Amino acid sequence: MAPHASYPLSSRARHMRASEIRELLKLVDRPGMISFAGGIPDPSLLDHTAFRAAYDAMLADAATGASALQYSATEGYLPLRGWLAERMTTRGIACSAENILVTHGSQQALDLIGKLFLDPGDRVVTQAPTYLGALQSFSAFEPAFANLRHIAAGGPVKLIYLVPDFANPTGRCMELSERIAALDLAERHGAIIAEDAAYTELRYEGEDLPPIAALDQARVGGIEEARTLHCGTFSKTLSPGLRLGWICGPAALIHRLTLIKQASDLHTATANQRAMHAVALSGFDARVARARRIYRQRRDWMLEALERHAPPGVTWTRPRGGLFIWLTLPAGTDAAALLQKALARNIAFVPGGAFFADGSGANTLRLSFSLADEAKSAAGIARLCELIAGEGAHARPEAVSGTGRATTHQHP
Amino acid sequence: MAPHASYPLSSRARHMRASEIRELLKLVDRPGMISFAGGIPDPSLLDHTAFRAAYDAMLADAATGASALQYSATEGYLPLRGWLAERMTTRGIACSAENILVTHGSQQALDLIGKLFLDPGDRVVTQAPTYLGALQSFSAFEPAFANLRHIAAGGPVKLIYLVPDFANPTGRCMELSERIAALDLAERHGAIIAEDAAYTELRYEGEDLPPIAALDQARVGGIEEARTLHCGTFSKTLSPGLRLGWICGPAALIHRLTLIKQASDLHTATANQRAMHAVALSGFDARVARARRIYRQRRDWMLEALERHAPPGVTWTRPRGGLFIWLTLPAGTDAAALLQKALARNIAFVPGGAFFADGSGANTLRLSFSLADEAKSAAGIARLCELIAGEGAHARPEAVSGTGRATTHQHP
Repeated sequence: MAPHASYPLSSRARHMRASEIRELLKLVDRPGMISFAGGIPDPSLLDHTAFRAAYDAMLADAATGASALQYSATEGYLPLRGWLAERMTTRGIACSAENILVTHGSQQALDLIGKLFLDPGDRVVTQAPTYLGALQSFSAFEPAFANLRHIAAGGPVKLIYLVPDFANPTGRCMELSERIAALDLAERHGAIIAEDAAYTELRYEGEDLPPIAALDQARVGGIEEARTLHCGTFSKTLSPGLRLGWICGPAALIHRLTLIKQASDLHTATANQRAMHAVALSGFDARVARARRIYRQRRDWMLEALERHAPPGVTWTRPRGGLFIWLTLPAGTDAAALLQKALARNIAFVPGGAFFADGSGANTLRLSFSLADEAKSAAGIARLCELIAGEGAHARPEAVSGTGRATTHQHP
Repeated sequence: MAPHASYPLSSRARHMRASEIRELLKLVDRPGMISFAGGIPDPSLLDHTAFRAAYDAMLADAATGASALQYSATEGYLPLRGWLAERMTTRGIACSAENILVTHGSQQALDLIGKLFLDPGDRVVTQAPTYLGALQSFSAFEPAFANLRHIAAGGPVKLIYLVPDFANPTGRCMELSERIAALDLAERHGAIIAEDAAYTELRYEGEDLPPIAALDQARVGGIEEARTLHCGTFSKTLSPGLRLGWICGPAALIHRLTLIKQASDLHTATANQRAMHAVALSGFDARVARARRIYRQRRDWMLEALERHAPPGVTWTRPRGGLFIWLTLPAGTDAAALLQKALARNIAFVPGGAFFADGSGANTLRLSFSLADEAKSAAGIARLCELIAGEGAHARPEAVSGTGRATTHQHP
């Protein structure tokens, strides 16, 4: 059989492509590279001592050791589900353990939700730009993507995917009024909302806004009548490498998602669920508070560097949380071409086009500050801005007539 | 929104149902229950001491600890992929690390393969009966299932799913001639073979037969030209709870499966891959040899009990490996009804109907001997056979005219 040409691929597979971010991550280990590319946690925040103690205690005797290494329930480890239900309840999403399904990261949550709801051609509404991994995950079910801003007209909507807090890639928060409008839209269409709360814990200033799932259940009377599936993850708080996320929603949907998870990978790794539960119990809030302090400082360093170095015509977000700053370059600038030059000068970022389902956004880019200390931000942003300024000289005429220097302030 | 009725489920989701096996597993913890239901490893074979040492070493210092808890490559942990490639090579499947994708168990391997190849209506050929989890996994992609024995006629075939060694649920091995015929069939149709080697390591007598992937690459000249995706797992050897399996195949297909895995759950849990690699290095063969000794003894105890107690008209397989014995009851006997009575007398097994895609097999059942010591097998099989004999008295007339006592000997 000739490789490739004659493999009998599915329709979905013929349209898949590699994630630019993930491919980039393979390059950024190069010595001397200053990477603003990956949205990965600072390694110093991963509490190896706490996890070491958790695995050690769990595997110390034959009985608990065998339980940690054995098959377990598809729904997840009950004490962890209980802990998560309490946590969700304090966020305004009143629920119990039966409303929680533990997943292999929130990426798997999106895959399971796609499997449960999406037939080919179904309309999925997202913010634009939005999380690339969500576009890839849902794409396996061959939907049509639509932009939340341009949804007034058009056919029925099946699923609305939203990252309300400190979104990847923009760092933006949805205002309360936007959250309510999204819920109205979902009700009008009988649609499901997939609420991705990956960055919600990483707020550096301002007051928490209610999750859409909380607004939903307040409106309809309880979680069992709600239409929002709230997806959480430990990846930005305690550890991404253990692949632990969850879905919180009506028990009837959690039951169906559990059947789908069973067919997808039986259950989430047992030992990791137990370890994560132990580490979360031993001080989740203190660990997250430390992460907030560190990331907030890094955000400030990067914003200061942008203030100092950004050439005219470049705008950026000023996020109140999360890991990302989003730059808009003068129209006509090609961020993908810029990346090639930047890599040659040992700077990495993610061109913004990948985050748009419709192929727009060529003049945008995403900067992550999670790994950038003061010196890296100062040096890296200066070098990047120098490159951007150089691009401006070659940009199409209309690009030069940009709106001048402006900062997009994000409220709240 | 009214729960259930108005959820906008996908076509695939409307046809999903719970696994009887997994639902059963929730009952078998009842005190006094003798369970021959789940295909789960004996807990005493899960080496908690070795895993404890592995996690402890990995998390002992900040650098390796942070690596174990951080995001990692979708393809899997390179040293583990290398170890697996060597292992595959000794089994006759010559390959390197780039031919290996690490998955969250071999259940996920099937899900990824389904995603890569299956469009609705595509024909998937399986043994009948076959692994229920495979039927569930592929069902998400809405194929039409066909029986390997009746495939001579009919339309094109997209995927052939086979468990060549000590299959779940029958314990059967495919003869060499059957393996070659399956490969011929795949070539004729331009189809992919998914070879599920979950039980291959658990051989208790006789000589290894070549995996279909080995026959395939010998025929076409190398793995890159092959059409077989060989799926392995650590679930029956070192630990099922860590959810670690792999796919071994042509690099071009491994690359595409990697993209699909990335969209499905980013990557397999980092810490577990490192721990499994350390434990495998520290004595995989010795641990598997111990498992073989224990399971072989248990198989013998159960076969002896069946010889002693089985009523006329009942036949069963005599597997040379794996964890299962497959019973065929007199025609007209309903194993699902039998299960209700058995549970009331504290005996559990899995009715065979679930393992047939076409709804046949009502008079079959699966017994697992993995947890059954001599006393449990003797008492449990005696009680079960008493119940079967009682059913015989009520069976339809044609059932009583069965073929009498007969044992299906399996070669090899």
